[in-house]
Amino acid sequence: MRRSQLFLKTRHQAPADEEAKNAQLLTKAGYIHKEMAGVYAYLPLGLMVLDNIKQIVREEMNSLGASELIMTNLQAKELWERTDRWDDKKVDVWFKSHLQNGTEVGLAWSHEEPITAMMTNYISSYRDLPAMVYQFQTKLRNELRAKSGIMRGREFVMKDLYSYTPDQAAHDKIYNDVTKAYLRIFDKVGLGDSTYVTFASGGAFTQFSHEFQTITEVGEDTIYLDEEKKMAVNEEVYTDQVLDQLNLDKSKLEKVQAAEVGNIFSFGTTKSDQLGLHFGDEKGEPKPVYLGSYGIGITRLMGVIAEHFADERGLKWPVNVAPMHVYLCRLGDEPEVIKAADEAYEKLQESGVKVLYDDRNVRPGEQFADADLIGLPYRLVVSQKSLEAGGLELKERGQEAAHISELSAVVQTLGKACQA
Amino acid sequence: MRRSQLFLKTRHQAPADEEAKNAQLLTKAGYIHKEMAGVYAYLPLGLMVLDNIKQIVREEMNSLGASELIMTNLQAKELWERTDRWDDKKVDVWFKSHLQNGTEVGLAWSHEEPITAMMTNYISSYRDLPAMVYQFQTKLRNELRAKSGIMRGREFVMKDLYSYTPDQAAHDKIYNDVTKAYLRIFDKVGLGDSTYVTFASGGAFTQFSHEFQTITEVGEDTIYLDEEKKMAVNEEVYTDQVLDQLNLDKSKLEKVQAAEVGNIFSFGTTKSDQLGLHFGDEKGEPKPVYLGSYGIGITRLMGVIAEHFADERGLKWPVNVAPMHVYLCRLGDEPEVIKAADEAYEKLQESGVKVLYDDRNVRPGEQFADADLIGLPYRLVVSQKSLEAGGLELKERGQEAAHISELSAVVQTLGKACQA
Repeated sequence: MRRSQLFLKTRHQAPADEEAKNAQLLTKAGYIHKEMAGVYAYLPLGLMVLDNIKQIVREEMNSLGASELIMTNLQAKELWERTDRWDDKKVDVWFKSHLQNGTEVGLAWSHEEPITAMMTNYISSYRDLPAMVYQFQTKLRNELRAKSGIMRGREFVMKDLYSYTPDQAAHDKIYNDVTKAYLRIFDKVGLGDSTYVTFASGGAFTQFSHEFQTITEVGEDTIYLDEEKKMAVNEEVYTDQVLDQLNLDKSKLEKVQAAEVGNIFSFGTTKSDQLGLHFGDEKGEPKPVYLGSYGIGITRLMGVIAEHFADERGLKWPVNVAPMHVYLCRLGDEPEVIKAADEAYEKLQESGVKVLYDDRNVRPGEQFADADLIGLPYRLVVSQKSLEAGGLELKERGQEAAHISELSAVVQTLGKACQA
Repeated sequence: MRRSQLFLKTRHQAPADEEAKNAQLLTKAGYIHKEMAGVYAYLPLGLMVLDNIKQIVREEMNSLGASELIMTNLQAKELWERTDRWDDKKVDVWFKSHLQNGTEVGLAWSHEEPITAMMTNYISSYRDLPAMVYQFQTKLRNELRAKSGIMRGREFVMKDLYSYTPDQAAHDKIYNDVTKAYLRIFDKVGLGDSTYVTFASGGAFTQFSHEFQTITEVGEDTIYLDEEKKMAVNEEVYTDQVLDQLNLDKSKLEKVQAAEVGNIFSFGTTKSDQLGLHFGDEKGEPKPVYLGSYGIGITRLMGVIAEHFADERGLKWPVNVAPMHVYLCRLGDEPEVIKAADEAYEKLQESGVKVLYDDRNVRPGEQFADADLIGLPYRLVVSQKSLEAGGLELKERGQEAAHISELSAVVQTLGKACQA
């Protein structure tokens, strides 16, 4: 994509009232715009990152056999009353409004109730089970404070998956499969090494839920980590009894700050009982359906990735989530430089490499600063000097070493490195 | 996709309180679920149709040089006060809520104000113009009545494009380009022949806006149509003076009902003046920016397409928007039938044909009824009888004639017919 044709403008300063590093960086680099505290628009580069993360998640959800759908933002009060979660004292993050006839409506902070109630239309027999559906949905949560940038927003995008199964065994199998799929997802977005399955508090039905916690200084959670076993315990359930139960040795645990990037939760048959979701088994006997709920905060994950890899010069995206792969700097407006840059742009795109081509004729320092700030995995420079030295100058983001190569070699290198 | 693995269940009856034909059909065929009046969830097949329509629109927007982004649902009261559109007496479709500190917020019914205010961060010089951005966004509108299914929802998806230009001439050029792109879009989704550029009321800045109206009995608008000139006049501006001005002959006009599937609107410099969006021209003089706003109701368009092509048996999608291309019926569970159906499923998918494979072992009548109701462009039947007759039975949705061909011929025919 030619920079002159992309809606993109970097800024030297983040807004003075922006405290979170992820939002400071993403704002300066032109990925997001703050509408109000905890409410961000995603500009073209930001939307590309979100779409990449979504696609990684989508492929894993599909491989589980789940079907994608999209629920609604407006929700009926009546549903949430049936599970006793309408009252602001029970759920303190509701945004509520009302229809013109006065009927109160809720704005979606979660979808367990609507989706389970909907399922009463689609699940009636054991033949309809298991069913797995997921969505990428904008959630609104009326957080008292919102100072963590896109890591905790009042408006954010979540992937939520729901599993409906006939019994505990079928539920457990899917729960395990989702755990594995989640670990693959965090691997693919580059956070595998620093993300841990973490035991957290459960609910009426199970002792524990499971969180996926990524170690980061700015995380809001405190977890106790067993590096060897690759598992952790959330502070909220950190007791001697729990450690015994999980066979963890207190002396080996490390206390760290972490951000919850995913969670999985067993509801058992609680919600189905409350909302009347039953099925007839092989003998025609009515049975309640088991519900599992599995979330990944897509925008939060983007924020965590942004902070995790950034350095003092700006963002630094892993190839899989980067909005594009290569920042192509064209230094100078000599015909041979323009010709070589145009050619590199075309050949790379033909090989499936996504190129952000800085065709603005601004000075080198400005291009280099933007390349670092925007944080694509590679920077490629075309100039009189590089051409005289034998080609184009390729550098990885975050490395100092740059190498001059002919275009064909660059295309080969990047074609491989940037493969989907 | 194997039907046994897709979340899909058709229904014999639409909900009793559903008046609109589009919603009745889409509900019965398993595309949508009604959450409340005017508020619909999109089930897997419905989401596929939406995604196809979006992709057609997206390609045209990108070809105009516009960049995709995504704004927010939560909006600041202050912005809308500056343009005098916060008051419920001025805009009667607001949903409003408030933060925990009492600050009032609006839920997005439109985005002209937030996006124009945002642009003050990104447009300061003539070098930043023109700028074109668009989004696919969920809008919430508190309609007094919502009885038209997905053709007029309280929650719906809209594509909105905004153009920012330095002067009237640059604006007019883009306005014309968008008009042409819109006509291409309505062609591609199959409504080209029945969609007309229609003169409608303008605003403070221009006498007219332009609507794209598709003729349909259930349309909410009345328009006067000149079939020869392929243009129309909305009833709201249907006066002798306007007809003279547009050089239309009253006696040649036909009065028809139509649904507005798109509109384009010139704001001139009004919004920029109100929201302080100025740029410095070549001499450094401050000038207000011209705004154009261009909408297509994506979910409404899906509803119009659904109604437009449906027959007494169900939906009937044009190839470009159909969720999948072929409904593959497997009749019987004899090994050779299963083998032939599996092979057809694989070979067709390899050729880029999207297949919904009914692998449920239900009786033929149920499969055929579902195939018609769901409305994919083709139905392919594999049975003992078809194999004995020499292959597979292919039929177009809406046609009575069916033909037996060998798989290789079917693959060739459908591979061509279903090309993207």
